[in-house]
This record gives sequence, C-alpha cells and structure tokens, in this order.
Amino acid sequence: MKRTKPNLLVGTDVVDARNLDRLRKYSTVYRLADLSQERLLEILPKIEVLLIFFWPKELGPENLQEMTELKFVQSILAGVNHIPFANLGKGVIVASNAGAYSNEVAEYAWALLLSAAKRVVELHVSLREEKWSLRRTLDAGTEVTILRGRVLGIVGFGGIGDAVAKMANGFGMSVYAYSRRPKRAKGIRFFTGDRGLSDLLKKSDAVVLALPLTSQTTGIIDRARLSEMKSAGILVNIARGELVDEKALYDHLVGNPNFRYATDVWWYREMRESLKTDHPFLSMPNFIGTPHVSGPSGLATGRPAQLAVENTIRFLKGLKPKNIVDPREYVTSYPY
Amino acid sequence: MKRTKPNLLVGTDVVDARNLDRLRKYSTVYRLADLSQERLLEILPKIEVLLIFFWPKELGPENLQEMTELKFVQSILAGVNHIPFANLGKGVIVASNAGAYSNEVAEYAWALLLSAAKRVVELHVSLREEKWSLRRTLDAGTEVTILRGRVLGIVGFGGIGDAVAKMANGFGMSVYAYSRRPKRAKGIRFFTGDRGLSDLLKKSDAVVLALPLTSQTTGIIDRARLSEMKSAGILVNIARGELVDEKALYDHLVGNPNFRYATDVWWYREMRESLKTDHPFLSMPNFIGTPHVSGPSGLATGRPAQLAVENTIRFLKGLKPKNIVDPREYVTSYPY
Repeated sequence: MKRTKPNLLVGTDVVDARNLDRLRKYSTVYRLADLSQERLLEILPKIEVLLIFFWPKELGPENLQEMTELKFVQSILAGVNHIPFANLGKGVIVASNAGAYSNEVAEYAWALLLSAAKRVVELHVSLREEKWSLRRTLDAGTEVTILRGRVLGIVGFGGIGDAVAKMANGFGMSVYAYSRRPKRAKGIRFFTGDRGLSDLLKKSDAVVLALPLTSQTTGIIDRARLSEMKSAGILVNIARGELVDEKALYDHLVGNPNFRYATDVWWYREMRESLKTDHPFLSMPNFIGTPHVSGPSGLATGRPAQLAVENTIRFLKGLKPKNIVDPREYVTSYPY
Repeated sequence: MKRTKPNLLVGTDVVDARNLDRLRKYSTVYRLADLSQERLLEILPKIEVLLIFFWPKELGPENLQEMTELKFVQSILAGVNHIPFANLGKGVIVASNAGAYSNEVAEYAWALLLSAAKRVVELHVSLREEKWSLRRTLDAGTEVTILRGRVLGIVGFGGIGDAVAKMANGFGMSVYAYSRRPKRAKGIRFFTGDRGLSDLLKKSDAVVLALPLTSQTTGIIDRARLSEMKSAGILVNIARGELVDEKALYDHLVGNPNFRYATDVWWYREMRESLKTDHPFLSMPNFIGTPHVSGPSGLATGRPAQLAVENTIRFLKGLKPKNIVDPREYVTSYPY
C-alpha cells in the first residue's frame, strides 16, 4: 500500500542543504523563503509537519487556521514559548529542542557567574572611568567572591543544568539542584517542591536559572524568593527573563548592593523579549546584561538544526519524537 | 647549650594574632607597625628573619644596609619581583609564596577567559550605550567563542597553571602546558623550550599566562610571539603585566580585532605596577582590564599568611624552607 510522502514546511534558513536532503527522503519539503504568498496559501492546508526556528511571521493567526492537516511542530530554538499554542489545533504535537544548546548555554552561564563573582564588568568600567586605584588588599569576601567551597544552586535540571553542574567540578563547588521531579545524579544534592526551592535558594551562594518558561515558572523568582537568597548572593539567568519579577529584582538590587544579577535574557514587552526595561538596570554596578547571545552562539555548532531534523525524521518515520511538550503548560498566543 | 631565639621582623599587618603567637614559639617577634623610627634603627642589625607582604617602604636602601644579620626573607605575596635583590646580602635566602593564591588566581583567570570568550564586558557596554539590538543569529564563531573542543594553552605550570588546568576539565577543552622543565600530568600535553612555546601558541585557541616575572620572562610575549597566536585567539594574563610587550600588544589588538586580551595585571611605570598605560587599551572592545584583584582576593582565605608563616617556621626550626628562589633570575632593585 503506497502512500505519498507527508508535506513538510521548513520555516527557517537555519537548516542546511544536507539536512534538507535528509528530510526529502521522508517528506516533500517546502521552504517558506521559496514560496510566494499565493503559493503559501495554496499549500498550507496540505502541510502535516512544520519545522521552525522562531515562529515565522508568515504564519499569523489566519494562515495558521488554514493548516488543518498540521500534526507535528518541531522547534529549532530550545524553548517553545514562542509557539502560539492557543491557536494550534488540539491534536498537534509540539517538540522542543531541549538539550541542543546545552553546552554553549552552560558555558555562557559560567561566563556570567564568574563575571559577577569576580566583578569583571564592574571593575573594567571603574577603570575606564578612572574610579579605581591599585591597592593590595580588598574588603574580604564582598568585593571579589571566591567560589571554591561554596554552594552552586541550579534551578531546573535538564540538559543545561546538567552541563552547568559538570563545569562546577573543577571549581570545587558543592552543587545543589532543584527539579520538578525527583532526580539522582552523582555528587549532586536534589531538591523538589516549593519547600525544596526555598531550601536551595537559602543555602546557595550562587544560583543559575535553567528552567523553561511555562505558566508554572513565569515570575517564579518573585520578591519572596529573592529575599530567601543570601544578601551577597549571585543570580544568573540564561533561561528566560520572565522567570524573574522585574520590579522585585530592581528593589532587591537597590536594597542589597552586594547581591548581583547577571543575565543574558530579558523581559517581554508586547509579548516579545526586549532590551527595554522599566528600571535603569544597566547603570547599576550589581547588574550584568548581555543581549541573548548564549543560545544563538550554539547555532555555530550545527547541532541544533541537526537534532531538530533528526527528531522530525523520527516523527516522519512513525516513531515517537523526543522532547514532546505539554501544551497545557504553555498559555502563549499571538502576537510573538 | 642554650641559644637565644632569632629576631624576626614582621613587616605587614596581614599576619593575625594566632599566627604571630605561633611565630613567637621560635623567634622574638617585632612588628614593623609597632616600632618608632629610632627603635627600628636599633634592632635592624639584629634581625635575622624578615616576613613581609609587599616590600615595606621603611626598609629603604640605607635601612636595609643595616640588616647585616639578615638570613631569610619570606614573601606573603606569591611573586618576589618586589624584593630588591640587588641590595640584599649575598647569603640571604628568599622564599616566594608560590601556590598560596593558586585557586583564587585560577578562578580569576577563568573569569577573564570566559568574559573574553563570551564578550561579556563588550556586550554589556554595548547595551549600556544602546549600540545593540536583539537578534537571533550571530556571526558564526567570531562574536561568541565556544570553548568545548578547543585548546587551552597554559604558559607556566606551577600551582596556578595546575589549578587553571583542572578547571578546564568540565569545559571539554584540551589542555596544553608550557613549562621550563619537562613535566607530566594526566591529560595534559607539555611543551618546553623556545620551540615548544611557539608550538603551544600556534595551536592554542586561548592562552593563560601563569609565569613568574624574572629576567628571563620579562617581555616574553613580544611581537613575534603574538603573531604566532591565532588571529581570533584569546590571551589572559593573571601573572605580571611586564610579561607582555605593551606596544606590540597594542598594535596586535588594533590589527586583529577578533584577538582579545584580558588582564588583571599591569605594566610598570617607574618600577611600580601602574594603571597608566601608553595606549588607550580601555577604550578598545577587545581589551578587558581589572585592577589586580585576583591575588588580593585570595588573602580572604587566610591561606597566604598561614603558608608564609609555616614556611618561616621551617626556617626557624632549621629545616629547608620551600619555594626558595634563585636570586640570579631577579634583577630587581630599588625603588619599588
């Protein structure tokens, strides 16, 4: 019994020719960039599989409504909170690309952690503004934080959290990790539940946020959580800006000058990540910000596209794809 | 046969009461801060042992000449290039405090390495000056450097070099090390000699300088050495500014915008480390500078004073002290 190949729409130019050829073995491939508006409208009702990087602007609510045959969406971005779940048909399976950027994002987390602990940005800027002179002693323990013997807390223990933990070994830090479900890993002390998160935040000298952004995790680091952390603690965010309450963080940084926040990710403005903030974070010495480059840096390895293509092929072959997400955890709708 | 205890002069307030008490078991302890100018002149000819942090200004050439009984000098600073060897009597033994700050300096080396690789300072400053907008892709491999799979070269493999190497494990880097004498350590490829240094510089993606400053190492990273490094390479200096030729470095940074230099240590002006430079390094995006805080941060552990006191006691007990340096390698004289 012969069946025609399913139709696949590739909504990004991140997938190279070799990977497109691999997809063509199992599907008829359409590239969004090659399609006129007319042609796109023609094929949308036939598309069963969608492979995207960021959700494409061409697939607005009206066009998406035409995609009546859509069965599977694969994201090349690690997180799926850019996908308009509210507008997707009920049976559509969505797969994230969890783990595809783990090493590069974990390296970035360590760059931010060490920059904050050692005050690299603050000291560099002080020198530039001629506000520092050489001296042979420092205020013990507050100016430059020593990591050896301290506790690193990792909130969210997926691929990134695991990679961040491995990098801690050479630094002689104890690693505590919070995860939704109980986990075990050598040399790591795990915490679960609301109480577990409190315990981890209280005991950690530095905390790395590595959670997906879901309806449960939005604003998880609020005023109460921040106040549980050590007053000279360090909070690193390489996950999503919206995990942290913006106003609460600002007040906390003002009130605790030795507390440091280092982030590669930003809050949303009109449902999109934005460098605009409600507070003057970038003029604060205890804030370090970079423009969401941790994940994008991982694209250079080719691994994210490769893994997304492999997972798409699993679906096309009738196998169960990896990294299927629960749509109930995502309330996201247009515009993104 | 009873002999009076040797006289020890402590020229710093870095040694705490407990450690002073330990020294008093084996010596008569004088604290420089407690002595009037008159009293100092009186006891100088009797002092056999000197324990210092940085060389004290009270011990200028004339006063030092009075110290005819001086036999042993212990530095609490790791390096001894602050000691006026040219003015010391021939038989005086000088001990460095090598290894006492290794972990803290190695942590700082990693902070500078990651800050440079991930362009944390440059990106933070770009955001502050509103010169960056969010985008989802980067120029592959040049904007943000991925460390996994790359080569870390360590020039000088003492306590700091060893600690830097251990931290590389979790990052999946290959470690190459240059040392004066052939060495062996698990998982590290060693290079020696002039040719070996060339090979290491050519093959490394990032290089950490961890050499002492001696007559042999002054200016070791000159124009020729810089040109051997990869054009998008990273050079980290947590040892001494004078290891690197200032003008050659400036030209190299101008000519190779993807090459990055990150340093905690500075060149000498009138024989003293100074934040003043001949070139506008701090306004260059590929330069990161911090004001020599790596070693001082290690003082907070108490370990440097402790180790220096233990080594001084070895000498007082008639044992051979550790970390004896060869005075012929140091040409340093006043003023410091």
